[in-house]
Amino acid sequence: MFINNLLSTKPPLLRYFSSLEPRILKTGDILRQTRIFSSEDVVEYSKVSHDSNPLHFNSESARNAGFDDRLVHGMLVASMFPQIISSHFPGAVYVSQSLHFRLPVYIGDEVLGQLQAVNVREMKKRYLVKFSTKCIKNGELLVLDGEAMAFLPSLAME
Amino acid sequence: MFINNLLSTKPPLLRYFSSLEPRILKTGDILRQTRIFSSEDVVEYSKVSHDSNPLHFNSESARNAGFDDRLVHGMLVASMFPQIISSHFPGAVYVSQSLHFRLPVYIGDEVLGQLQAVNVREMKKRYLVKFSTKCIKNGELLVLDGEAMAFLPSLAME
Repeated sequence: MFINNLLSTKPPLLRYFSSLEPRILKTGDILRQTRIFSSEDVVEYSKVSHDSNPLHFNSESARNAGFDDRLVHGMLVASMFPQIISSHFPGAVYVSQSLHFRLPVYIGDEVLGQLQAVNVREMKKRYLVKFSTKCIKNGELLVLDGEAMAFLPSLAME
Repeated sequence: MFINNLLSTKPPLLRYFSSLEPRILKTGDILRQTRIFSSEDVVEYSKVSHDSNPLHFNSESARNAGFDDRLVHGMLVASMFPQIISSHFPGAVYVSQSLHFRLPVYIGDEVLGQLQAVNVREMKKRYLVKFSTKCIKNGELLVLDGEAMAFLPSLAME
């Protein structure tokens, strides 16, 4: 999903682009995708990360720690950021990411991952792009934010 | 793995602890684990994260981007940090993490994940601990560094 100049009052220019014309990433552009994490996702992520923190598997442990129920792993939620970048820019190379976990994500929550390009710089035939990154759940609650930097092989979006 | 006062010239005090006595986390303590990521790990992580960046699956794409071969996902390498914390402190709640990806991790590289407690603060019957975090591959190369903050339910280590 791609929104150009979200805060502008002008109609979005990209609406009039032909589907054959590449969409070129610019400062201010926003990339978004939503996802709902399932119980199976938590199990599969735990297997590959070897992270078996009881907060993810045992509702009572999660409630004892002050949560409503067992949590989705924060780093699995954060994996949305490089996933969204690489889905639009295959071959992107991740440089950095900061993550502030603000609120829990529970199984079944609808999570919107959103990246906004805040700086675009050409470097050695590649593009170093700084994104502000956030995840919002159930349409309103900020659960995770931070910043990402990635080298993109091109600014043309897939 | 637990090393107390790594840089101290004094013999490590914890050597003399009984196995029945809990080891208590203090500023300066280091937690470490090693891992080698396999091709299957990359495939399984890709399935659960939905991240199918060709850098992780296609050697030619990886070489075109300047790497020797296909890469392990950076966020899978970074998952070592909360995994190491929660393996010693079940019920730990992740607050934040910064990540700077310095060098690529290839399938088969031996990765040492290391966290050093740099600040320990009691807050509302829990402990807010700041860790410096790094991953070192093949014994010498810094591949990833940053800082983590986590609430621990106790400073007694498992």
